[in-house]
Amino acid sequence: MATLQLASRTSDAWIEQATQHIDLILLDHANCEKKAAGNALSLLFRYPSNGQLVETLSPLAREELQHFERVHRHLQRLGIPIKPLSAAPYASLLNQHLRRPEPDHLLDALLVAAIIEARSHERLGLLGIHAPDPELRQFYLWLTAAEERHLQIYLDLALAHFCADHVQERLHTLLQVEAEILSTLHPEPRVHS
Amino acid sequence: MATLQLASRTSDAWIEQATQHIDLILLDHANCEKKAAGNALSLLFRYPSNGQLVETLSPLAREELQHFERVHRHLQRLGIPIKPLSAAPYASLLNQHLRRPEPDHLLDALLVAAIIEARSHERLGLLGIHAPDPELRQFYLWLTAAEERHLQIYLDLALAHFCADHVQERLHTLLQVEAEILSTLHPEPRVHS
Repeated sequence: MATLQLASRTSDAWIEQATQHIDLILLDHANCEKKAAGNALSLLFRYPSNGQLVETLSPLAREELQHFERVHRHLQRLGIPIKPLSAAPYASLLNQHLRRPEPDHLLDALLVAAIIEARSHERLGLLGIHAPDPELRQFYLWLTAAEERHLQIYLDLALAHFCADHVQERLHTLLQVEAEILSTLHPEPRVHS
Repeated sequence: MATLQLASRTSDAWIEQATQHIDLILLDHANCEKKAAGNALSLLFRYPSNGQLVETLSPLAREELQHFERVHRHLQRLGIPIKPLSAAPYASLLNQHLRRPEPDHLLDALLVAAIIEARSHERLGLLGIHAPDPELRQFYLWLTAAEERHLQIYLDLALAHFCADHVQERLHTLLQVEAEILSTLHPEPRVHS
């Protein structure tokens, strides 16, 4: 089974920023889950005739929504008021690297989604260790396993549609891009600061 | 409990068109379920701070995706190849009646969603009676109950956010618009022809 190794490790500075502003991280995390569902759904709209995408990404979108609802319940439990929050530039910077022509676009979209899941897996795992609230730690440890499963789903879809060498080469490039984007800590506390 | 009465009944002509082209109806229906999920999700993006919308529309979007997956399985079972299909003008014509300024936009969006669910409830119920395949009839009878539940969710959200008189008045107007849109049978067989 092919897997994916991030090109950089999250810094202690992010852990400190995140745990000191866990309210903003939770709010941002709710938005991330909603966007992950939206992203899976947009792939279903873009490739309506691809049965394999339907079978894997529709259940994945449902699971992202379920996570969104669970984050929402933690927000309520902790009395954190829901308010609009600007996104970190992370996803939009990554999306600038999606090539437009097909089939390159599909490959890039699947790999960028896999990379985002991989980074979320890493960072939510760190929250599972360092979050100040024990229920949150338990939640994040549970969730990080799902993120790992999701990254594998996107990677497997890429490998089902494109040859392994091509996938690996492009993955390597995009992993470098991703590490570069995160090399400077975003001043606002976010999941992908 | 307030309810919603469509301003017109579906004609026998639609039933005939739909049952004679059940392959196209199923394909279109898959798209409708996907769009219903997308619509619920877009309301969650548009009103991120509205806890009541989160709690009701995120599970609703998940259920629409589950229906989408079930329609997809019927397409496979019946050997209907999945292909892109143009949408009926129904939803886009209805959406032209959404007022832009808030809070009117929210009211209109909830009522149009309720009306689309109500019409789907009626038409999928007719497929539950008239579809040529017994498994499909069973599926549609099961599904039409869900559509009724969804229309009630949207209507209840409207009534939770706006006064009953205002809701009823606007609902009456939009129901007339909807009946007018469907007064001429669309030449292409679709759920909302």
